[in-house]
This record gives sequence, structure tokens and C-alpha cells, in this order.
Amino acid sequence: MKKLQALLIAVLCFTSISIFAQQKADTVFEPAKAYKKHYNALYILNEADDKKVRGILRNINNVLNDPRLKGKLHIEVIAFSDGVEMYKKANSYQELLIALKDKGVVFAQCAKTMEERKIDKNELFDFVHYVPSGNGEIILRQYEGWAVVHP
Amino acid sequence: MKKLQALLIAVLCFTSISIFAQQKADTVFEPAKAYKKHYNALYILNEADDKKVRGILRNINNVLNDPRLKGKLHIEVIAFSDGVEMYKKANSYQELLIALKDKGVVFAQCAKTMEERKIDKNELFDFVHYVPSGNGEIILRQYEGWAVVHP
Amino acid sequence: MKKLQALLIAVLCFTSISIFAQQKADTVFEPAKAYKKHYNALYILNEADDKKVRGILRNINNVLNDPRLKGKLHIEVIAFSDGVEMYKKANSYQELLIALKDKGVVFAQCAKTMEERKIDKNELFDFVHYVPSGNGEIILRQYEGWAVVHP
Repeated sequence: MKKLQALLIAVLCFTSISIFAQQKADTVFEPAKAYKKHYNALYILNEADDKKVRGILRNINNVLNDPRLKGKLHIEVIAFSDGVEMYKKANSYQELLIALKDKGVVFAQCAKTMEERKIDKNELFDFVHYVPSGNGEIILRQYEGWAVVHP
Repeated sequence: MKKLQALLIAVLCFTSISIFAQQKADTVFEPAKAYKKHYNALYILNEADDKKVRGILRNINNVLNDPRLKGKLHIEVIAFSDGVEMYKKANSYQELLIALKDKGVVFAQCAKTMEERKIDKNELFDFVHYVPSGNGEIILRQYEGWAVVHP
Repeated sequence: MKKLQALLIAVLCFTSISIFAQQKADTVFEPAKAYKKHYNALYILNEADDKKVRGILRNINNVLNDPRLKGKLHIEVIAFSDGVEMYKKANSYQELLIALKDKGVVFAQCAKTMEERKIDKNELFDFVHYVPSGNGEIILRQYEGWAVVHP
């Protein structure tokens, strides 16, 4: 009789543990919510791959239209290393960049990359801004509380 | 005599600077410590490369077992762009995903990617949740104080 | 007359909106500033690609010289997965690593990667430190307020 009782208790315990584990895994999911009035995000580009460049610009378009962030989001893009290609007049991103600039997106370039690669500012679009180093910008913006996205 | 004294002082200064520089470089290293009771992390996947997908799932397994974070860490995975492949029933990650889901990991997908690529929700696993945009989720979770990992 | 008035108002409104939109797009850009006395940054390497390894080490050099952060920045590098190659005596990064170590940069390695790949600590440079998991370090440092850079 005692054996049966012990078995019964064991089965019960096991069942409730299983149910608990199940519940834990299935807790109701809530997407992040936007409680603040204003958000800042720094987008990072350090690659020249065409798919990557177009991808980051499409991502920025999408996030500006995310119903949670619409009208609340300021974006700065920082390019360094191979990412500088996005800003060259000789390449084909002018239209996409200006469309985003007109939505308030700010474009910044690492001055160190310019120096290392001997690129003249005239080779880049006039609306590009310069920061001492791309990595410095990434670190300082995080300390200012900005979100960072490196897609 | 004065010359000798000056030389001696110079040598002393130089030696102490060297020792100081050495000490600075060799300061005792301490891994980060977990003082809080609960941590949240958002894992990002935007690639379809099999090595990347398996890598991120293995990383999540490892971090859940990190003695510093064990039992304290809640993880949400956000997939966007090519990352959606991880959730397709047609691909081979079901077993790995369910093992993590059973440990409480939550899987979220960018709804914008679904729309752009005309993917039906039926093509993805039932336990996948949806957020308006993957990039919005990345920005908002950072503002909520979450850590972000993009391996 | 009323029609003309309405038209005039409409034109005026439209013009001022355009000017406003233009101004919004052209707001004066200010690079991030360093108001604090000390900054911490965690650099992440999980690739073995030679260009990536040299790139991260060059980035660290550059950011240590960013006039905004000079003398204020402490850097820890965390390697995991394929990133462990950077620390192997058999590879060719010794000189670059020691130059950064002498500037106070701290090098850490994921112990989990060592175990999974059966790498002996003797294969890595003596100045490498170990943390239970690379991903745990990434999460915990963010909670400690560190900036994270994954170039």
C-alpha cells in the first residue's frame, strides 16, 4: 500500500513539473513596446557588399515605418572601413540616401578611414558629416543611451 | 656631481614610468560578474548560412549554462531578413529550436520580412511569435535595458 | 475672393511645411561628445578571417587615438568560436597583440570554446585571460554599462 502511495506521489510530482515546464515555455509573448516619446539609433556599416548596403538602407526605411516607432525615431548612420563606399558619388546609392536624408536620417563618416585610404571629401556626397573615428562614435553614442544596430 | 645627480634622477623617473606602464598592462583581470537576479538578452539572426544558424543556437545553449547566468537569463531570439530560414518547417532546425523553447527561449520573427518575401505563417513553426519589425525590436529592447547579442 | 484666400492659405501652409521638412533634414550635425572621465568598451571577435582579425586590432588602435576618448578608454577584447585563432601562438598576431596589451588592452577568451575545440591553454599566449563563456561576458558587460563593439 505504501509503495502504491509513493508511486502515486511520484507520478503527481512529475505531472506538475511537466505542466510547469510547459507553462514556462509558453508564457504569453509581448513584442517590445515604445513608452518613450523619442528614440535615437546609430546604424553601423563597415562593409561594401552591395547586398549589405541596400539591406541597411531598406532596414532603416522599415524601422521608420514600424508603428511602434513612427515619428519618434532619430537615426544616424556611421560608415567606416569598407562602408565608405556607400557615400561615394561614383557608386549608385545617391537616390536611396537622399530619400532617407529627406526623412531626417543623418549620415556620418569616419575621418580616420578617409585618411588611411587617402579619400578626398569631394569624392563623397556633400551631405555626409565627419566624426574623428567610427568606433569612437559607436562607443560614445552607447554611453549617451542610444540604441545601436549593426545589421 | 650635479650632472650625475640629474642622470640618476632621470634613470629613476624612467624606471618608475616603465614599472607603472607594466603594471597598467598587467592589472588583475576579473571576468564580468552577475550581481543581478535577472537578465534579459535579445539574440539577432539575419543570415541563412547553416553554420551561422547552428552557431547562434549553440551559443544560446552555452550562455544558458554559463555559471554566472544559470537560472537568471531570459532570452528572446529575433530573426529578420535571411534569418527567417531558421523558422521554416521545410528546414532542419526543428529539434534544436524545440530544445531551446523547452528551456524558456522565445522565438520572434519580423513581420515586415514575411510581407516582403510573401511568406505564409503556415510555413513557419507554430511557436514563432511576430513583431512589427525586427529592427524596431532591436532598438526598443535596448531602451528597455536588455543586452543584445548578434553573433 | 474667399476661394482665393483659401488657396493662398493652402499655399502658405504647404510652403512652410516644405521649409520645415528641409530644416529637419539639414539640422546641424554634432558628433557624439565625451563628457565622462572614463569609458569601457568590449570588443567582440568570433571570426578567424585574417582581414577581420587585423581589422579589429586596427580599429582598437584608432579608437584609442580618437581625440574624444584618448586616455579615457579601457578596452577588453573577447574572442569566442573561430575568434580563438587570434590568440594562437602558431598564428601571426603576436606583435600586434603585445603592442595593444602594452597600451592597457585586456585580452579574454571564452573557456567554452577551448573545451569544445579541445584547445590547450598552452597553445595560446600567456597574457590571455579566460571567462566562462564569451556570450555571458557580452551580456554581463552590457549590464555593467559598457559599450560593445563587434566590427
